[in-house]
Amino acid sequence: MARHEFTRPPLGDFHTSPFYGRDVISADDFSKPEVIQISDLATQIEMIQRNGGRSTILAGKIANVIFYEASTRTSGSFQAAMLLLGGDVITYPDPKKFSSAAKGENLEDTARTLDGQGHVTILRHVDIGSAAKAARAARNPVVNGGDGAGEHPTQALLDLHTILRTHGEVDGLTVTMMGDLKFGRTIHSLAKMLTMFEDITLNFVSAEGLDMPEGIRDDLRTKGLGNQYATRSLADVLPTTDVLYVTRTQNERFQEEDPEFAEMIRLSIPLYQVTPEVMEGAKTTMTLMHPFPRNEEIAPTVDDDPRAVYFDQADYGVDVREALLALILGRAV
Amino acid sequence: MARHEFTRPPLGDFHTSPFYGRDVISADDFSKPEVIQISDLATQIEMIQRNGGRSTILAGKIANVIFYEASTRTSGSFQAAMLLLGGDVITYPDPKKFSSAAKGENLEDTARTLDGQGHVTILRHVDIGSAAKAARAARNPVVNGGDGAGEHPTQALLDLHTILRTHGEVDGLTVTMMGDLKFGRTIHSLAKMLTMFEDITLNFVSAEGLDMPEGIRDDLRTKGLGNQYATRSLADVLPTTDVLYVTRTQNERFQEEDPEFAEMIRLSIPLYQVTPEVMEGAKTTMTLMHPFPRNEEIAPTVDDDPRAVYFDQADYGVDVREALLALILGRAV
Amino acid sequence: MARHEFTRPPLGDFHTSPFYGRDVISADDFSKPEVIQISDLATQIEMIQRNGGRSTILAGKIANVIFYEASTRTSGSFQAAMLLLGGDVITYPDPKKFSSAAKGENLEDTARTLDGQGHVTILRHVDIGSAAKAARAARNPVVNGGDGAGEHPTQALLDLHTILRTHGEVDGLTVTMMGDLKFGRTIHSLAKMLTMFEDITLNFVSAEGLDMPEGIRDDLRTKGLGNQYATRSLADVLPTTDVLYVTRTQNERFQEEDPEFAEMIRLSIPLYQVTPEVMEGAKTTMTLMHPFPRNEEIAPTVDDDPRAVYFDQADYGVDVREALLALILGRAV
Repeated sequence: MARHEFTRPPLGDFHTSPFYGRDVISADDFSKPEVIQISDLATQIEMIQRNGGRSTILAGKIANVIFYEASTRTSGSFQAAMLLLGGDVITYPDPKKFSSAAKGENLEDTARTLDGQGHVTILRHVDIGSAAKAARAARNPVVNGGDGAGEHPTQALLDLHTILRTHGEVDGLTVTMMGDLKFGRTIHSLAKMLTMFEDITLNFVSAEGLDMPEGIRDDLRTKGLGNQYATRSLADVLPTTDVLYVTRTQNERFQEEDPEFAEMIRLSIPLYQVTPEVMEGAKTTMTLMHPFPRNEEIAPTVDDDPRAVYFDQADYGVDVREALLALILGRAV
Repeated sequence: MARHEFTRPPLGDFHTSPFYGRDVISADDFSKPEVIQISDLATQIEMIQRNGGRSTILAGKIANVIFYEASTRTSGSFQAAMLLLGGDVITYPDPKKFSSAAKGENLEDTARTLDGQGHVTILRHVDIGSAAKAARAARNPVVNGGDGAGEHPTQALLDLHTILRTHGEVDGLTVTMMGDLKFGRTIHSLAKMLTMFEDITLNFVSAEGLDMPEGIRDDLRTKGLGNQYATRSLADVLPTTDVLYVTRTQNERFQEEDPEFAEMIRLSIPLYQVTPEVMEGAKTTMTLMHPFPRNEEIAPTVDDDPRAVYFDQADYGVDVREALLALILGRAV
Repeated sequence: MARHEFTRPPLGDFHTSPFYGRDVISADDFSKPEVIQISDLATQIEMIQRNGGRSTILAGKIANVIFYEASTRTSGSFQAAMLLLGGDVITYPDPKKFSSAAKGENLEDTARTLDGQGHVTILRHVDIGSAAKAARAARNPVVNGGDGAGEHPTQALLDLHTILRTHGEVDGLTVTMMGDLKFGRTIHSLAKMLTMFEDITLNFVSAEGLDMPEGIRDDLRTKGLGNQYATRSLADVLPTTDVLYVTRTQNERFQEEDPEFAEMIRLSIPLYQVTPEVMEGAKTTMTLMHPFPRNEEIAPTVDDDPRAVYFDQADYGVDVREALLALILGRAV
């Protein structure tokens, strides 16, 4: 059997690809063929690694992972992606408190000086637009790991990849989104990316006060996604659903702002909880997705259901980030 | 001279070993032959590295090191073990505050999703039983880096390895434990592991209120370790002692709960302090051990005594963790 | 084209060099030929890496980076230096709070036990003299990453390297220092290192209360640097300046101690700010340096001026640390 370890990388050389050196700021940056290319490469990488192979296409490459807002899973997922392809990582724990930012340095100077300490900067920040701002200052590519209420493009890519990976295609699917549809950045980005595909039906299931914003629904219609249906009851749409995407209701956010509303939402949780009984009403081919962390919206007793793909979804997130970083930085040496 | 760097690993291939893929939850998980095997491998690794050789048996393998309770040395020791064998590490600083746990995620979901971000999870947690809980959820092996007042199996292994490494054998030795014998998890695990060996004498030296719990003494007796002797005075047992194992009294813990007791313990410190004068009464072949961090229980003036092996003990800790990780994950590629 | 990746390191083998295994505690530790050697090696490394080559001379070597006082850039720069030469890094986030130090361990024990977890310790600490103290306890080399108001030798080396790299030589240059000359450790170390060279003119530009201390000026004179000139106005010395080195005024420090003084300093900021208009009065060959982080003392509109080399200076910092670590640890395997 071929030995991939420390020999010529099996993934080829991406330095002539249009991705090479590119920033990743918004899910909108990607065309449909590019999304498919990333997804295919993610699957290829998954297969190589599953079979005990290893690509070291990122050997000698360093990612500076700087998260001004904590996110263990996303940060760890990016780090794993770099390391699995032979790259290295520098992290900056709690930079709001400890970095030069605390001494009044602006984000542009931070981004520009990180250039000398690595080959790509992976940034999470609380402010909308901060990733774009950093990218303008930096010479190295900047990857947006989430900018506040703004974008989280790699989450959108991994969600779409999970659908492609588990259903084989996206065209023609009925996708049901349930949970906090009002504030869920993940949901909004995924919905937007679904407009790239044909013949999608999109259902929205939410408690009152957490509905998908009308502005986003209009935007989706403009982009050709007209088959939308909103309901308070999952039962209405479950039988025809191909992908059920559930999100966490960030109740702690409401607790401060509007305790009465928070209490109402808390009481409604059982109505929107996925249990084994609920799963009985779903297609055998349905997939159940969740971006994690999960609270009560999916009962742990559902985990063993083969349709529950949320753990795989988290794993695929590493594959997608590997694919993306390989395309941006990968160069056979 | 042979070049080990980036060539075939000199440690062989452990993927057919019974250790491969195993969790390490409790010191009880190991049989005596297994302890000996780990110790021998630790020594072999030490010798290779001392002579400038290098095994990269863990190349391509990633450890997720997640410590909910801070422990610089243990965390660093595990990280060094991975890196010295060519592996990689992802750390999660202050996960209680920053990780998904802060958003209400349970430990099982955290453990299961870490699977996709590496090949082994090294966990320290405040709750007894948490490592076992994580191991049940995870597909990858979980190594317990200490679960509260519960287990700390790699500390027990490194203590036993230090005795084997410095005395050549354990059978027949007289081991004296001094310090906080009531709460000292390290001491309890080591005592339990000593029951694997023959003809051990175990002495306990402690201030009133810090005695070895009767339940543990009974348990040791049941397991065949009947030669036990408790005293308030080190002088009683020092002349016959082969291994003097001293632990730190975590006085800060008593300060809050029982200030009067804390003051009494503070006053007794000089009575249980190892100084050069004390060492004059010890065998020339005795070894003096301590798990670190050290406060006043061993005077720094003792450090140059060749019998003071506590710094070596810390070094051996890296060797033991290398051996363990090589056995669990190591596979020639 | 030669393939540097994973083959014989192109940098040679430094284990017979007088640097091998040495501590780096003070800028005074280096002779002029040594400074030149480090600078030359830094440039050589820069050129190899710019051309897509890679040395892995530090493969298998681990640096323990332990910063008791936060400094993102310096810590990241050292980490990048290790990783770019194939080495590895273990970091200890917020060790004052989380490490064994919190349990009362002294710095000597910490330093000595870190030896077993790597090959070099890179330490930043709040106390003057702490790096020397750690170095006495440790068997591995210790590199001082800044010890409070004491030394920061790698900053001094990178400043000098930047002058050498951009001007080709140091002898004969007129260096103007502006900003907080009273407390600026960076400035003090650089001034001291400039005494190694011939025919230097040193100008000091500062607001009242932030002047270069007389003791340091006397010391510089004793070491042969007699051409010193202090002024409140940059215009006095700008036309003849070859290197303008600007530092940040740590106003937040004064805010607490002496709010009236802080306010006075705040009002004087515009007088000492470098703007495009100021740059018009400077030599075309002048270089403008700054150690970062920057606040208002250099306007961002100056960044595009080719004489503004502060971003390069930050990059050169990685090269210098690579050179230093290669000399201390590098050994062809």
